Amino acid sequence: MFRATVLTLYPEMFPGPLGASLAGRALERGAWSLEARNIRDVATDRHRTVDDTPAGGGAGMVLKPDIVAAAIDAACPADDTRPRLLMSPRGKPLDQTRVRALSAGDGALILCGRFEGVDERVVEARGLEEVSIGDYVLSGGELAAMVLIDAIVRLLPGVMGNAESGDTESFETGLLEHPHYTRPQEWEGHAIPEILLSGDHGRIAKWRLEQARDLTRRRRPDLWEAYRAQHLEKGKP
Amino acid sequence: MFRATVLTLYPEMFPGPLGASLAGRALERGAWSLEARNIRDVATDRHRTVDDTPAGGGAGMVLKPDIVAAAIDAACPADDTRPRLLMSPRGKPLDQTRVRALSAGDGALILCGRFEGVDERVVEARGLEEVSIGDYVLSGGELAAMVLIDAIVRLLPGVMGNAESGDTESFETGLLEHPHYTRPQEWEGHAIPEILLSGDHGRIAKWRLEQARDLTRRRRPDLWEAYRAQHLEKGKP
Repeated sequence: MFRATVLTLYPEMFPGPLGASLAGRALERGAWSLEARNIRDVATDRHRTVDDTPAGGGAGMVLKPDIVAAAIDAACPADDTRPRLLMSPRGKPLDQTRVRALSAGDGALILCGRFEGVDERVVEARGLEEVSIGDYVLSGGELAAMVLIDAIVRLLPGVMGNAESGDTESFETGLLEHPHYTRPQEWEGHAIPEILLSGDHGRIAKWRLEQARDLTRRRRPDLWEAYRAQHLEKGKP
Repeated sequence: MFRATVLTLYPEMFPGPLGASLAGRALERGAWSLEARNIRDVATDRHRTVDDTPAGGGAGMVLKPDIVAAAIDAACPADDTRPRLLMSPRGKPLDQTRVRALSAGDGALILCGRFEGVDERVVEARGLEEVSIGDYVLSGGELAAMVLIDAIVRLLPGVMGNAESGDTESFETGLLEHPHYTRPQEWEGHAIPEILLSGDHGRIAKWRLEQARDLTRRRRPDLWEAYRAQHLEKGKP
């Protein structure tokens, strides 16, 4: 079973949105587990201090290495082989390939950064893998952790119904997904593309692939180049 | 004041994590506002239907164009000039530049996709701008909307204290941020880099810039190329 252990200064944020909808129903029936631990619980001084000013000066506060290490060590026995992730804009950008790999594992320890960041020494000493969900800055790692967990959980066995199989969706094929249409057939003067009503499944599949390719080429030249390279490599231009 | 209007099938998820910490305190004192509207409220049939099967066949369900249009029209008077965003993995990747531009505006209407997606005709007819928070797939647009709002809100005037100014953080300079250190000076045999204890602010700033450049070059060749191009253009190699 996938076990998510989250280290945070805001344990009350969890499960939050992860307690509803797809992830929430899966959590309720035990398809995955979630433990949110308060980093502050390991602080032993009178003020339960977790941060201090940055060495060398500058704005903000930095999470202390001794506190973060103690929180990690208390959450993870030495034989816990789950990956240890730090949500941080400095990390490697998360993509669907990494999400799928994580969903095949037995869980993750997820440290949520706050303030200016985490002391670099503990990142190295505890082998934290920095993960970024995108090129923007959040007020903390908690929403990033929820995004990561939601993306993983929906891929766990039995979580998505057959009706929502993820095989053709964005990124799984290296392309953005084709456009969708549903009833009414005519809406505000706009009709559903005729081919989708033809019943010819071969032609529909071909049209959707063309649409997906065209959209990816226009919107995401970066994905398109990678897709093209892979398909040329395989001799499928 | 920044007004966020969210259209969702899960209004109970909001404010959720946005009700705590930095964004929550700012929400409480009226620095921004949040309205989560249930898309289902505009469905008038007995079952309050919001979705239907995809034209042309395939897995999952598609949000109906008439329902989505009615929800948008009910939430936005014609003279509402706020951008209308659709959280979707098919969208343009969100970055800090777009976040900063949105934070300078008067708000946003944010539609959270669910199921397989939204009928393409309403995306076009209502001028929805598709926004992606990253190259992975979520169970719905709600967490993506929260990520977007959190990134925006922390940039609103007065929300971050002076102590947390965002000027040097990741992406604002085109670089990932330099590493941080704090007390204790010696921890598990690892010392804080000596230069940070020198008190020489000029040398410290130079060291941090070098660290940021080196990290960006190693981890994010894409950002590094853009940074280099811009700095060479300006004659600052």
